[in-house]
Amino acid sequence: MKLEVIKAFQESTFDVFKTMLNVEVTSDDAVPSNQQIFCSVSGTIGLTGSIAGDVIVCLDESLAMHVTGAMLGQAYTEIDDDVIDAVGELTNMIAGSAKGRLEQYDLSLALPTVILGAGHRIGFRQGIMPMKIPFTCEWGTFSIKLGLVEAKTPQPIG
Amino acid sequence: MKLEVIKAFQESTFDVFKTMLNVEVTSDDAVPSNQQIFCSVSGTIGLTGSIAGDVIVCLDESLAMHVTGAMLGQAYTEIDDDVIDAVGELTNMIAGSAKGRLEQYDLSLALPTVILGAGHRIGFRQGIMPMKIPFTCEWGTFSIKLGLVEAKTPQPIG
Repeated sequence: MKLEVIKAFQESTFDVFKTMLNVEVTSDDAVPSNQQIFCSVSGTIGLTGSIAGDVIVCLDESLAMHVTGAMLGQAYTEIDDDVIDAVGELTNMIAGSAKGRLEQYDLSLALPTVILGAGHRIGFRQGIMPMKIPFTCEWGTFSIKLGLVEAKTPQPIG
Repeated sequence: MKLEVIKAFQESTFDVFKTMLNVEVTSDDAVPSNQQIFCSVSGTIGLTGSIAGDVIVCLDESLAMHVTGAMLGQAYTEIDDDVIDAVGELTNMIAGSAKGRLEQYDLSLALPTVILGAGHRIGFRQGIMPMKIPFTCEWGTFSIKLGLVEAKTPQPIG
């Protein structure tokens, strides 16, 4: 995966947390991720274009509730429909911002879905080399997993 | 969601099971799905185009192992990397076949990912009206959830 792709997702995450949630985020270097990842709350969104695959924002429940609280202006103590919507929206905004930084890849976004369940596993297919970008903010740590490959056939350009 | 979309996924599922797994599948009418769904093994894939969203193939572990066994020609008694690959491939084939039947929607597919974990929940965002297509075969029952909406802006056409 090209560094510019990883960098786009890092910068988009900084921007979305800063502008939408008023929270500073720092990041370490991206590292290869396991083929299977374990999360409590995952926001996922599909990307198509000249790279294609899934972007997964991997949070714990506490951080998911903090994000929701900051987005909706009230405190959350359980994972409800608002948290699903907020994590979906967070995922959508990060991917949308990255899409804007990666115009040369002609990306389209599917819709975000949110997966819940302590310790659910998400498996990428063999042949995908997922990357993990670790982030830290005042609410804790989270990560973005990029399971993207170059598309075999070029996507149509309008 | 238009009936032709649902029908394309029904027929694609019949075809993929018949041609790839040599198993007959029957289906009941699609029904509106809950905003949150519970699965043991989910194959998900993002779609973009003039409709966009996620297609989720929702199986239990036994059926996932049967599918893998039929695809790879050996028996499976646990959920391992082969099962992840097989469920991903099944999801990819069903979505790919449906894409071929829905040329008018100009669809592109992201990559399949597979989610594992007894009773994990997948939440769609508010505003999406997911549909559930129930299927039955000799190995048990499974379903496909379609969380698709019409895209706000038309996708470029080559």
